[in-house]
Amino acid sequence: MSNSANDNGEPQGRVTVVGAGAWGTTLAHLIASAGRPTTLVTHTREQAQQIGHDRVNTRYLPSVTINERVSVTHEIEAAVRDAEVIALVVPSQQMRVVATSVVNSMRPDGLIVSLAKGIELGSLLRMSEVIVESTGIAPDRVCALSGPNLAREIAEGLPASAVVASVGLSSAVTVQRALSAPTFRLYTSQDVVGVELGGALKNVIALGAGVADGLGLGQNAKASFMTRGLAEMIRLGVAAGANPLTFGGLSGLGDLIATCESPLSRNRTFGERLGRGMSVADASGGTPHVVEGLTTARGALALAGRYGVEMPIASVVVAVLDGAMTVRQAIDALMSRGARPELDAPL
Amino acid sequence: MSNSANDNGEPQGRVTVVGAGAWGTTLAHLIASAGRPTTLVTHTREQAQQIGHDRVNTRYLPSVTINERVSVTHEIEAAVRDAEVIALVVPSQQMRVVATSVVNSMRPDGLIVSLAKGIELGSLLRMSEVIVESTGIAPDRVCALSGPNLAREIAEGLPASAVVASVGLSSAVTVQRALSAPTFRLYTSQDVVGVELGGALKNVIALGAGVADGLGLGQNAKASFMTRGLAEMIRLGVAAGANPLTFGGLSGLGDLIATCESPLSRNRTFGERLGRGMSVADASGGTPHVVEGLTTARGALALAGRYGVEMPIASVVVAVLDGAMTVRQAIDALMSRGARPELDAPL
Repeated sequence: MSNSANDNGEPQGRVTVVGAGAWGTTLAHLIASAGRPTTLVTHTREQAQQIGHDRVNTRYLPSVTINERVSVTHEIEAAVRDAEVIALVVPSQQMRVVATSVVNSMRPDGLIVSLAKGIELGSLLRMSEVIVESTGIAPDRVCALSGPNLAREIAEGLPASAVVASVGLSSAVTVQRALSAPTFRLYTSQDVVGVELGGALKNVIALGAGVADGLGLGQNAKASFMTRGLAEMIRLGVAAGANPLTFGGLSGLGDLIATCESPLSRNRTFGERLGRGMSVADASGGTPHVVEGLTTARGALALAGRYGVEMPIASVVVAVLDGAMTVRQAIDALMSRGARPELDAPL
Repeated sequence: MSNSANDNGEPQGRVTVVGAGAWGTTLAHLIASAGRPTTLVTHTREQAQQIGHDRVNTRYLPSVTINERVSVTHEIEAAVRDAEVIALVVPSQQMRVVATSVVNSMRPDGLIVSLAKGIELGSLLRMSEVIVESTGIAPDRVCALSGPNLAREIAEGLPASAVVASVGLSSAVTVQRALSAPTFRLYTSQDVVGVELGGALKNVIALGAGVADGLGLGQNAKASFMTRGLAEMIRLGVAAGANPLTFGGLSGLGDLIATCESPLSRNRTFGERLGRGMSVADASGGTPHVVEGLTTARGALALAGRYGVEMPIASVVVAVLDGAMTVRQAIDALMSRGARPELDAPL
């Protein structure tokens, strides 16, 4: 219940990770392996029993034996009660209900960090905004963590890095200390808008990059597409109040590259299936994981409308998902845009 | 000898491409296929005879049948005499001698465009500067073309794009028209410094990205490395007078991604061999192509010294090439840099 010490003798509070998908499971394993008391909260009692018993998340991360220091439970209220940091690693559209379920039992000085990468449909709020609105806790106690973090690579012990952003710098520093590990390097930022929008919007570009892969357009075309995609992300970000430089960092460009280039990315893989001629319905099948880019594309487009920003890539992604455009028509629409000096489009 | 018309009836002067490597051969083929009179200049008489006879560049581009409109010769002075645009596609360290050999026979209104991506050792000049210094022609008649342009993809008809930069905008527009093709889209820019440094410096980062591949560090780490690499490119570019936004475009980020991610990139492949444990000498062997990043890393570091800019990545690349550091020591040197807020380093 109280604080303990890690292997370096540094006092560390408990970290409770809510959400036992691939990323949540990896994170809990990583933190526990660094010597900190860690709880992993599953969606169902059966999942908690299975993982607690087998020490493997059979459904989402079958290749990793979970560190014995990770307590596994489905009882979220009890699990967050003594947590210094509560990490919410759930699909974006479930963030509101999950945040609401932790607020009454969490410590008065507890911090919440969102690791979800998306935009809430309807409200068009970023995840940290959803948390603040639904819990009523002060914005400086809420953080967002984002970066090039393909879960399976991190679970296998490969090195990675990410950014922890909060309007409260001391909260970002606390979360940085709580979630760091020898192979997981964290930087701090106060640009929550930029960090969250980078993580969310890159999934939309990754869908398109996957389409390019599926069509066999080559790396020249894909790299050009990603370049224009980042420019589109920055346009929306700046309109929403982000620092454009954040998009050139780990949570923007870094995450964009990792997601667009890795076969492990679900968003990229979904796009690749579309590019190969699969229907949207067929391309969605065959994976237990959530493809965040599908909802984020709609959220991004709605946000773009609110801010009066042009997002040609997000527009055609949504048109393809809605069946209003074929993949080939989408490519033609993007390629036929008028030629101009490169920097005329605001970057 | 005079201007002719292309398939659209638009009058077009002759384009003479000097340098029959993979990229020069591809470019000549592309331009001729778009209906323009084109000459390809080889290094030796034997090469000209082989390519002219077989219509295939056996050594550098064996997979492509070269368009019959391409005239092939090794007589450079005659070949440039009636050219509206002279495209120099030669290794960076040969640019000076090649530029010198065309200046006396070229048209008084002829334009030169450099497609080389490097820095001249010793002088530390960019390619357009080498051309101006060695020929004495006005800077506004010299252009630089750069972008994500893996030659083999373009030769196979896959779409690509690039930037043509010149301090003389009308020259950039002329070259844009002369070198465009249905599958090769060109944008103009007046930021010659940014476009040339992007193309040159990205090869240094690609060497390092290849090392990450060779070591099997994963896409998270590689994407983080590329992100920090772009920041390092921008630091030097801004010190040298470039527009930082240029590095976010096709000739910076676009080229960086294509080069770091494609198995076709010689610089990346060289780094991958180092990462797998090969010596520098062994890694250089087995290819007729020039690995530009090897000399550019030294040039970049010398430039960084001149401008007082920190380039940790270029520093360790040079140290590895010189045998002063092992690949593993290089990784440790980069990873042990102090943790800090992400944006403290100027991007």
